[in-house]
Amino acid sequence: MAEDKKLVEAITSMKEDFAQWYTDVCKKAELMSYSSVKGCMIFKPAGYAIWENIKNEMDRRFKETGVENVYLPMFIPESLLEVEKDHVEGFAPEVAWVTYGGLNPLQERMCVRPTSETLFCDFYKDEIQSYRDLPKVYNQWCSVVRWEKETRPFLRSREFLWQEGHTAHATAEEAEARTQQMLNLYADFCEEVLAIPVIKGRKTDKEKFAGAEATYTIEALMHDGKALQSGTSHNFGDGFAKAFGIQYTDKDNKLKYVHQTSWGTTTRLIGAVIMTHGDDSGLVLPPKVAPVQVDVIPIMQKKAGVLDKAYEVGQALKAAGLRVKVDDSDKNPGWKFSEQEMRGIPVRVEMGPRDIEANQAVIVRRDTREKITVSIDELADRIPEILDTIQKDMLERARAHREAHTYTALNYDEFKDTAANKAGFIKAMWCGDQACEDKIKEDTTCTSRCMPFAQEKLSDVCVCCGKPAKAMVYWGKAY
Amino acid sequence: MAEDKKLVEAITSMKEDFAQWYTDVCKKAELMSYSSVKGCMIFKPAGYAIWENIKNEMDRRFKETGVENVYLPMFIPESLLEVEKDHVEGFAPEVAWVTYGGLNPLQERMCVRPTSETLFCDFYKDEIQSYRDLPKVYNQWCSVVRWEKETRPFLRSREFLWQEGHTAHATAEEAEARTQQMLNLYADFCEEVLAIPVIKGRKTDKEKFAGAEATYTIEALMHDGKALQSGTSHNFGDGFAKAFGIQYTDKDNKLKYVHQTSWGTTTRLIGAVIMTHGDDSGLVLPPKVAPVQVDVIPIMQKKAGVLDKAYEVGQALKAAGLRVKVDDSDKNPGWKFSEQEMRGIPVRVEMGPRDIEANQAVIVRRDTREKITVSIDELADRIPEILDTIQKDMLERARAHREAHTYTALNYDEFKDTAANKAGFIKAMWCGDQACEDKIKEDTTCTSRCMPFAQEKLSDVCVCCGKPAKAMVYWGKAY
Repeated sequence: MAEDKKLVEAITSMKEDFAQWYTDVCKKAELMSYSSVKGCMIFKPAGYAIWENIKNEMDRRFKETGVENVYLPMFIPESLLEVEKDHVEGFAPEVAWVTYGGLNPLQERMCVRPTSETLFCDFYKDEIQSYRDLPKVYNQWCSVVRWEKETRPFLRSREFLWQEGHTAHATAEEAEARTQQMLNLYADFCEEVLAIPVIKGRKTDKEKFAGAEATYTIEALMHDGKALQSGTSHNFGDGFAKAFGIQYTDKDNKLKYVHQTSWGTTTRLIGAVIMTHGDDSGLVLPPKVAPVQVDVIPIMQKKAGVLDKAYEVGQALKAAGLRVKVDDSDKNPGWKFSEQEMRGIPVRVEMGPRDIEANQAVIVRRDTREKITVSIDELADRIPEILDTIQKDMLERARAHREAHTYTALNYDEFKDTAANKAGFIKAMWCGDQACEDKIKEDTTCTSRCMPFAQEKLSDVCVCCGKPAKAMVYWGKAY
Repeated sequence: MAEDKKLVEAITSMKEDFAQWYTDVCKKAELMSYSSVKGCMIFKPAGYAIWENIKNEMDRRFKETGVENVYLPMFIPESLLEVEKDHVEGFAPEVAWVTYGGLNPLQERMCVRPTSETLFCDFYKDEIQSYRDLPKVYNQWCSVVRWEKETRPFLRSREFLWQEGHTAHATAEEAEARTQQMLNLYADFCEEVLAIPVIKGRKTDKEKFAGAEATYTIEALMHDGKALQSGTSHNFGDGFAKAFGIQYTDKDNKLKYVHQTSWGTTTRLIGAVIMTHGDDSGLVLPPKVAPVQVDVIPIMQKKAGVLDKAYEVGQALKAAGLRVKVDDSDKNPGWKFSEQEMRGIPVRVEMGPRDIEANQAVIVRRDTREKITVSIDELADRIPEILDTIQKDMLERARAHREAHTYTALNYDEFKDTAANKAGFIKAMWCGDQACEDKIKEDTTCTSRCMPFAQEKLSDVCVCCGKPAKAMVYWGKAY
């Protein structure tokens, strides 16, 4: 068990230093590795496999709503980036510029896409002529680049993977409906697949996307009480359409501008999973995105028949549609247990010679460490049930954690006191004035996370200035 | 039928101008669109969906052989690109250089990856310490950039999508086995999924990959008799390992260099599908990669019950696991037929009021235009069989075309005559000297496509210089 101890000792506890715990888990669970390209990371197999599972399931849900996938160039000529004023101001300071092609300087420099609104607009301008060409509901899975100064694995990186949907519609109503539809899809995905409860709401003007009329967001609360913006959906109205000249001839033969949306989620969802569910033994993965769901660990595997039985069980579980690993390495069982825990595999199945003789095995839940002894013949029936239970329990536990870390502030002293002494969301009323947002940020480092769709009237006045309140806002310190 | 005619008239015939026919099909079948980013193209839904099908099936086959997916940064610092001498000479003239991050010039410029050998080596250098860390069999699906001067949709583009596998092994034998295994996987994939027969062989030194000891290739013959390199697999020996210092401690406690391979296929496979199977009515897609396999086209759809029956049939076919579209648009049937043909949908099902009354429908094969009348109740059983037949027939037809366009040249006059007057592969003996390759290219524009694994001894002497021959080579004009 010495080796075993070493593996676990190698990670800092959450309480001691949450940031270090996070980095330790990323590395020890072999999710990623730093690269010699500054600010960029390597997705190792265990990390990339989570992204593949996220992508496959989200893409399936997209397609059910009529989304079609496309792929646009990764470069944006400078003149194209500059067409929409707010947009270029938001992104120009943080893009990477290509200035040479081969041995020759480019006539016009191009940036590596930080997001592709401008490219989609340029594309739609030619594609859309008539109402028959609408709607366009396109999406792409790709990587984007933003020249961040400070980076953290999965959360903030100079290059990251994401999906970006870009749609064009005949009417403002249709665009608004799609904006909300995708936000709801993201919220359902987070809750049903990642077991992460989210607050749905609208961003304040200060926090909205460069060029958008409205930005909707889903906000999650991490284990340390900090907020993580986990997906956004933007309604552009006809702003980009006017800047780019995207018009169509309607049924009434009149030329009209389209209404556009965009929506995206990124590999930071992996960071959200780590920080919502992880514990001091490492990663805890929701069964639905776990690359390996069951780790079959033979005990005293050199005894005759043990490994064979483990393989047999592994096969039976695979046949039941589960993602299974049989750990037949020559490490000792304690090491294997620690490794399974570090990697966040939802359940392990322990089986030694005496278990096999008694035709039984022990299932151990990663999330609760509960041990469940079952007949070997029943494993393929029981494990899917247990995985379902884990998935549900993880969501409820995360929801309870969020509720326990959501505070209400009715006046500014209360707000500052909560911000200084508690970690979590603070619900408070706001007048709608950016000056109050700025002051709150300066005084407390809290930012407005969103104006939730589920509004509550906590009081009549702004928590900061005391003027009449316009909306309740979720505030928090954010990643 | 006027509209109908227009759609088909819009494409140039293959005989008249094959290059124009190709471009017309790419555009009219809505596979792609040009972008305002010079040399880069847009993958539209119908084109990207083919790539998704290629990717899903190839990835499944990869994983069966133990491949794990990862994602590495898209940038390569200049100093890293320069570590391996042959490699940098091969790629430096055709990369895009990033010189600014945000508003600041970079201390060291970085290129956008043209291929990722150097990044994988830099990664493996730290990951691999012991024989226990081997083999590494990693792959990534991503885009790469090569600053090409002349571009053509899918075939040659400044940015393209691909997969690149990079492996590290303890022994030379294992690396060689993996190199061949992946080439065989590619060949099987092309034949079984894309219905494209390929010649497997080894590249001459002149044509091999920059930095490789050996490059294996699969070569396909397009409808116009030109060759298309469709996938390559490289054995690097320990060349990169020595340049990058990738060493492991073996079981005997000695420090040894790893042996590496890489292998890739790209979106040019879509070009191969178009040019192998297409005809003057447009695209012809092999059922296994067709995004839509069955187009149900109601005739006189305004008559009561016709559309309902079409939807019902569509549902039944979907339930049978097929990818189905019911064309309920208000275009006339002739237009719909032309569109289905242009898009290469493998079969259409025509059904009008009288058919429905007789409980029958007409299946029309895209590849042969054969019409098969079947009972509506049998559609879900018959169509999968017909799709299987189409898949097989397409492969056999392509194979017959290749055989009919493969020539043998025993002396140089014969070679030049064939090269000047026939389009296709030329099999001829070669002495192994690059001077002869150069001369043949200068005289005929033919390049050596590969030294096939299935060697034949056509004569004892080189077709060019008359010196003793070392190998039979497939020569051809290539894309």
